[in-house]
Amino acid sequence: MGMKRIAVLASGRGSNFQAIIDRVCDGTIPAEFACLITDNPSAYAIKRAEKHDISVSVVSFSDYPDRESYNQALEKAMQESGADLFVLAGYMRLLKPETVRGFAGKMINIHPALLPSFSGLHAQQQALDYGVKIAGCTVHFVDEGMDTGLIILQYPVVVLSDDTEESLAARIMEFEHLSLPLAVKLFCEDRLEVSGRTVIIHDHQDE
Amino acid sequence: MGMKRIAVLASGRGSNFQAIIDRVCDGTIPAEFACLITDNPSAYAIKRAEKHDISVSVVSFSDYPDRESYNQALEKAMQESGADLFVLAGYMRLLKPETVRGFAGKMINIHPALLPSFSGLHAQQQALDYGVKIAGCTVHFVDEGMDTGLIILQYPVVVLSDDTEESLAARIMEFEHLSLPLAVKLFCEDRLEVSGRTVIIHDHQDE
Repeated sequence: MGMKRIAVLASGRGSNFQAIIDRVCDGTIPAEFACLITDNPSAYAIKRAEKHDISVSVVSFSDYPDRESYNQALEKAMQESGADLFVLAGYMRLLKPETVRGFAGKMINIHPALLPSFSGLHAQQQALDYGVKIAGCTVHFVDEGMDTGLIILQYPVVVLSDDTEESLAARIMEFEHLSLPLAVKLFCEDRLEVSGRTVIIHDHQDE
Repeated sequence: MGMKRIAVLASGRGSNFQAIIDRVCDGTIPAEFACLITDNPSAYAIKRAEKHDISVSVVSFSDYPDRESYNQALEKAMQESGADLFVLAGYMRLLKPETVRGFAGKMINIHPALLPSFSGLHAQQQALDYGVKIAGCTVHFVDEGMDTGLIILQYPVVVLSDDTEESLAARIMEFEHLSLPLAVKLFCEDRLEVSGRTVIIHDHQDE
């Protein structure tokens, strides 16, 4: 059984992409990169990919006459990547249900809240507005719903009384940088098993 | 400023009531008990109260001809207790909105989930059914909604892959026994301040 191949989808800065790069480079994640796919030709994530000789597919919405042809191009890029795992790491464009179905069980996302609380946009501000004392982040398989997929990992993060959206987002992001690479590692080591809505994490089997 | 007086409302075993008794007896919570109020004449909580010379008001639904007269009796018992704080510690009967409004800001509840996730009954089973990795408990002020009041404290609790409703409930309960007495202590020390939906916890001021 060969090494798994990872494709990362990102739209912006790509700090979670970098966290995965770091753990692949130091051998923590036993995988290699298939490519970075981005919808944003000026995403800083592209620079990170180039620095590590990771090939880049830019599928920019504005290059296509309509949503249908854009989606076809995106799916083509994903299929041609040959990746075993697709990681949404700050990919800001919603995927079509057909696309999600086509890559079911092979696509994961990170969300800056303890789902099912605070799905959707501005999760950190939602948490502050509600007044929770414990926020967090969730890595989950992507399904057709909005942040409703099976949960792989969650980390709790304390909310401080003087937190702003920015300070809370920054604190949560530190845990995103731990949890997303760990989820990728568990996937690549074939240690995730789905049972109903529970994702069972198996102990590492040394060979 | 004299010591605060606490009334506890419980329907059953009263293990959270006992946790508060223990912290009052060892001086951690600077308060005295007004009474235990229960709707269940055979609640084990009554034995706990008697052991510590805490007066007991039994307001049993079956003793009243209708819901209205029952509610009047319950409110009367609450008012006559002279308590500054009313703690719902496994009180299984829903309070009327009018009752809740009458004691606004003076009534707290503990819920075995990280609200706003999994409000209502069987929160631990709801968490298992959803497949979360982090469960927990929440102490909150009671408002007219179902577990929607302002959050005072939350504790995260790890869900294990072989958890049953019973094993998860038992693990969460250990944290309930920490967090409910702590919230009572903070209230009795006048260290809680409401700002919008956020409950700010002030540092302890030694005198």
